[in-house]
Amino acid sequence: MTDRLAVGIDLGGTNLKAALVDREGRVVAERSCPTQAEQGPDRVIDRIVELAAELLDRASVNRSVIVGVGIGSPGPMNLEKGTIIQSANLPGWKDVPLRDRLCDRLNCRVVLENDANAAAYGEAWVGAGRDNPDFVLLTLGTGVGCGVVLNGEILHGHFDNAAELGHLIVELNGLECPCGQRGCLEQYASASAVARRATDAISAASSPGCAPDARASLPETPAFDARIVAEHAARGDPLCGRVWDETCLYLAIACITIQHAYNPATVALGGGMSEAGDFLLGPVRRHLQAQRWKLLDDVPQVVRATLGLNAGVIGAAGLVHNEPR
Amino acid sequence: MTDRLAVGIDLGGTNLKAALVDREGRVVAERSCPTQAEQGPDRVIDRIVELAAELLDRASVNRSVIVGVGIGSPGPMNLEKGTIIQSANLPGWKDVPLRDRLCDRLNCRVVLENDANAAAYGEAWVGAGRDNPDFVLLTLGTGVGCGVVLNGEILHGHFDNAAELGHLIVELNGLECPCGQRGCLEQYASASAVARRATDAISAASSPGCAPDARASLPETPAFDARIVAEHAARGDPLCGRVWDETCLYLAIACITIQHAYNPATVALGGGMSEAGDFLLGPVRRHLQAQRWKLLDDVPQVVRATLGLNAGVIGAAGLVHNEPR
Repeated sequence: MTDRLAVGIDLGGTNLKAALVDREGRVVAERSCPTQAEQGPDRVIDRIVELAAELLDRASVNRSVIVGVGIGSPGPMNLEKGTIIQSANLPGWKDVPLRDRLCDRLNCRVVLENDANAAAYGEAWVGAGRDNPDFVLLTLGTGVGCGVVLNGEILHGHFDNAAELGHLIVELNGLECPCGQRGCLEQYASASAVARRATDAISAASSPGCAPDARASLPETPAFDARIVAEHAARGDPLCGRVWDETCLYLAIACITIQHAYNPATVALGGGMSEAGDFLLGPVRRHLQAQRWKLLDDVPQVVRATLGLNAGVIGAAGLVHNEPR
Repeated sequence: MTDRLAVGIDLGGTNLKAALVDREGRVVAERSCPTQAEQGPDRVIDRIVELAAELLDRASVNRSVIVGVGIGSPGPMNLEKGTIIQSANLPGWKDVPLRDRLCDRLNCRVVLENDANAAAYGEAWVGAGRDNPDFVLLTLGTGVGCGVVLNGEILHGHFDNAAELGHLIVELNGLECPCGQRGCLEQYASASAVARRATDAISAASSPGCAPDARASLPETPAFDARIVAEHAARGDPLCGRVWDETCLYLAIACITIQHAYNPATVALGGGMSEAGDFLLGPVRRHLQAQRWKLLDDVPQVVRATLGLNAGVIGAAGLVHNEPR
């Protein structure tokens, strides 16, 4: 059985990624290409099929050892039907039966999963959550993605849409979110939100009447990202320091919600912003200790995700390896 | 098999309740007595044993039809060991092996569960959640109790302490909670909190400089409860109306967290405050519709719990009927 391999696919709005993954979660081979999502679902499905074939050819793997294909896709989706209902990142997709179309074309078992859930499953299986079956992943990138694995299984909920913690309301009547809510975590703690909030703070500090030292070391251009905010905060810039610290506070509040909702052993932070490492984890843990309840010591440990950009393909493949047919 | 019965016990800080429950969740007989918790764990366990014996004797039930005893207890507890770690409502309890001690005394299978979880399980089994296996119960009483049933099973989490949604932070830097956090749901939306907030609002309105009509129809005494606040709000009292409406807003925010965390089909409101019926449910649903995201129609229906004070004993008995040995 140890020679059995699964194909994991990560269908992103920008890039398609495929990997051959063994039963221990090791990536044996990988390929990627642009999704060219603007060409619509038929062409994207062609490209997925082509990429999978290319992956197997390049790795010189006999198809008989392939146990199936797992694919993580943006949603929302209907998991029972195996359809993508729609997606902001996949124009023209409307109730596309992705699972069955891939199954027909690839002539093997296909498991469809939400992309954030697939990444969480990968981290829970062989990454930051591998020592414990109760695990939450927050991915801090353009938005805040989330997946929850409880007792070793992905939490889906009645509408297949559980674990959308990017849209936790962390600030009542807070910043508007395109989702229609106000005060969503995603508006405070995604990498994009950090950049935007710093930009807004600079604009406010540049207005007449504001003390010049409030601007400190900030770049003149508003086109800076979360990494630059972190760097300036680390160098002692007060404005960036404030934005970064507030971000860590909101993440700590989210961890408290996660603690009381799911009571997991571990919350892992992934995505681009987690590259800040201890400069992110340190203040999140500090705020968590300050804000948390004192009744019980059931606070999850907050760690950095370990699989990086491979979490999605590893998790998608892991679902094929581990799930009963 | 239809003649099989289970005993469900609800161990409260004030009252002990026991019921004989059939496989369809119907209460066949019930008994209750004061817990006399101040007498410590040994005496309370004696009383549980006595109450169970009395229940069976009065109902003239042959002990051979009893499949086991389920007990809902305040926590925190260690479910694997079957111990009560401690409890604010049970003085002197410290790592008490309640499950095994009852098992020895009653000479039958005993299932131990958190009291709020047992109530949620009861409602999910034969109450407000009976049509759907993804269900959340919020009990609005002295505090805000909560239990979550996903796919028909109680959510426990790694530390056996999941679904503590009374301690969701709904107001950053909000009111202090004895748990050590600030801004907990319980400080805004429990029956006690509603009474307390209205009392505080009256005191503020009674202070010099406040317009007399702000006090409107309020009672002179500060010792009024959530029911009186609701009644005055219904009669048009502006101060009570504001406190009540804010309460419903916080409950709606909690429902949004529940939606994004678990994605259940149903959230049921129980406990004393739910007796306000549509006067509670109406504004909660209205705020939920106003505050919720517009991406997807995956909002849970918000309903009133249906089992009242029997939810705990029915749920505890249901665990015995339904759980594999």
